[in-house]
Amino acid sequence: MLSGHQTWIFKQQPTIISSGTVGGPFEAQGNIAHDFDILHDDMWLNQDSFEKSQQTMLEEACQIAIKKSDINKEQVNFFIGGDLINQITPTTFAASTMGVPYFGLFSACATSMESLALSALMINGNHADYILSGTASHHAATEKQFRFPTEYAGQKPPTAQWTVTGAGCVLVAQNGTGPVITSATIGKVNDMGITDPYNMGAAMAPAAVDTILTHLKEREVDADYYDLIITGDLGKIGRQTSFDLLNEHGLQLKEDQYVDCGLVIYKDDQPVQAGASGSACSAVVTYGHYLKLLEKREIERILVVATGSLHSPLSVQQKDTIPSIAHAVSIEIGSDQT
Amino acid sequence: MLSGHQTWIFKQQPTIISSGTVGGPFEAQGNIAHDFDILHDDMWLNQDSFEKSQQTMLEEACQIAIKKSDINKEQVNFFIGGDLINQITPTTFAASTMGVPYFGLFSACATSMESLALSALMINGNHADYILSGTASHHAATEKQFRFPTEYAGQKPPTAQWTVTGAGCVLVAQNGTGPVITSATIGKVNDMGITDPYNMGAAMAPAAVDTILTHLKEREVDADYYDLIITGDLGKIGRQTSFDLLNEHGLQLKEDQYVDCGLVIYKDDQPVQAGASGSACSAVVTYGHYLKLLEKREIERILVVATGSLHSPLSVQQKDTIPSIAHAVSIEIGSDQT
Repeated sequence: MLSGHQTWIFKQQPTIISSGTVGGPFEAQGNIAHDFDILHDDMWLNQDSFEKSQQTMLEEACQIAIKKSDINKEQVNFFIGGDLINQITPTTFAASTMGVPYFGLFSACATSMESLALSALMINGNHADYILSGTASHHAATEKQFRFPTEYAGQKPPTAQWTVTGAGCVLVAQNGTGPVITSATIGKVNDMGITDPYNMGAAMAPAAVDTILTHLKEREVDADYYDLIITGDLGKIGRQTSFDLLNEHGLQLKEDQYVDCGLVIYKDDQPVQAGASGSACSAVVTYGHYLKLLEKREIERILVVATGSLHSPLSVQQKDTIPSIAHAVSIEIGSDQT
Repeated sequence: MLSGHQTWIFKQQPTIISSGTVGGPFEAQGNIAHDFDILHDDMWLNQDSFEKSQQTMLEEACQIAIKKSDINKEQVNFFIGGDLINQITPTTFAASTMGVPYFGLFSACATSMESLALSALMINGNHADYILSGTASHHAATEKQFRFPTEYAGQKPPTAQWTVTGAGCVLVAQNGTGPVITSATIGKVNDMGITDPYNMGAAMAPAAVDTILTHLKEREVDADYYDLIITGDLGKIGRQTSFDLLNEHGLQLKEDQYVDCGLVIYKDDQPVQAGASGSACSAVVTYGHYLKLLEKREIERILVVATGSLHSPLSVQQKDTIPSIAHAVSIEIGSDQT
């Protein structure tokens, strides 16, 4: 049901019955390496383009999620996903391989939660029995498309993030054991006039703040309802900016309650500037790491606020501003687990 | 509710309470010119890029739909849409201008019906009161992106379509007067090995056939339930191919019952090769032309089968195949009109 203007409450408890996450070689050196189902030791995966490598990772993540469940692919009603690449071809080509009815999405790095919100909506209203929801990104494919090919070895400013090479997918069902999706808030596009594609955190921070404040108000819960509020890839500076902005709006979060996916995935000594980004960032951190903590009951309630910058290489060339969006989905321990 | 594997039946009759359609100078010379709300006499709309011109048309279509209704913009819960351009920036920038919570989609020229299906889903389950659903395309922006800049004056084969310059938007609501959305079938990705970006009809025809057959089976109606089955932009050859394929599968449609949006919009003597394409094609023809016929009760039930080719310029360069998809939505005269 609709609560407020842009928030959904899911009373039927759509359940995440399984997940699959895949990472690349750089992710294999990071903080949550042990949480991935598959880690690849090169960027190519025996494919002839980085985009096809990204497609392969998404296919693997979906196959793992299905394999971990007790259903087969033919029982999946819909596959919902998208990515950063022009015309989201890696996701589409993966959907073609899987042969499941398909919704293509684009919300840049917020795609994971746009997809999860729609999956929960369909399951909640009995419009599907099983849904695969996933996304992928690839560092080299993204650099080539949005910035410069990595071979140019361009220097980056300290606000620049590193795009995650990986894929994350969940299988959402009407029944089963696992964490449940309890609510979702769909964000508005925010445009604060940022034009620098090396400073996405600044562009996305206001979107995250807007969606978090709206979510808490419309769901009618306090911030401490959630053990963790996990934002997408704002980077070190964007995380601090949004933390301060929330504080200015009267929302005093505890330091360790406010987590940035982009800062979780890599170790401090990995040569990244400001954490990670990419549509896979929120997906692999949430579906690989935090779902496990929920399943172990180390945490009970999280709000995942995936953030995306909705520009294209063309709009960057034209010096347009970089509008951003954030979609929030809450995941909690299901009643069968309490 | 779910009927079969991939079809939704909407029992609460989500209603299309208003629409807005915008066209360019070439569309102004076509068959349905009198159906547009706005016709522009140049391709630029005083913007400095074709992509921004496309964005402006979408904004206009949304504004018209709202203006024709008795609600204001602030009552719209969600804007759902997408387009063909990299990272769907025209739609996103329009969403930014409108300030309405936003779902970005990508299903190429099938986006209009992906969007309408999701809008009906949200309205049907009381997850929204009002939704704006729309898409736009622009001939010059699309040529530049997927083929060659028009200034190159490249010769095209007879299977090549002309991308519609236009935008179409509808306002979907829980109550009100207007045609209602009764069902939707979400397509699978079809890949028949076509690699020629000048022969989209061949790539999309099997997707249309698959979705039409699935829809009729899962909704449990015969083809003659519908006054018209209106496909997306298959072109002259694609239309004939799909008509023949349906026949081979035992579905004998009447010639004038099976309509191609791409052949409706332009006159025979306009210098196009095989009809029209573009994400706006299905949108402006359905929302501009056929909704009016439904409102006048000249027809009572239509099935709109928007078709999209899910490739990118990059995948064309790589000589990948062009996977395609078709999403079908049925629109009928509402019970308050019968």
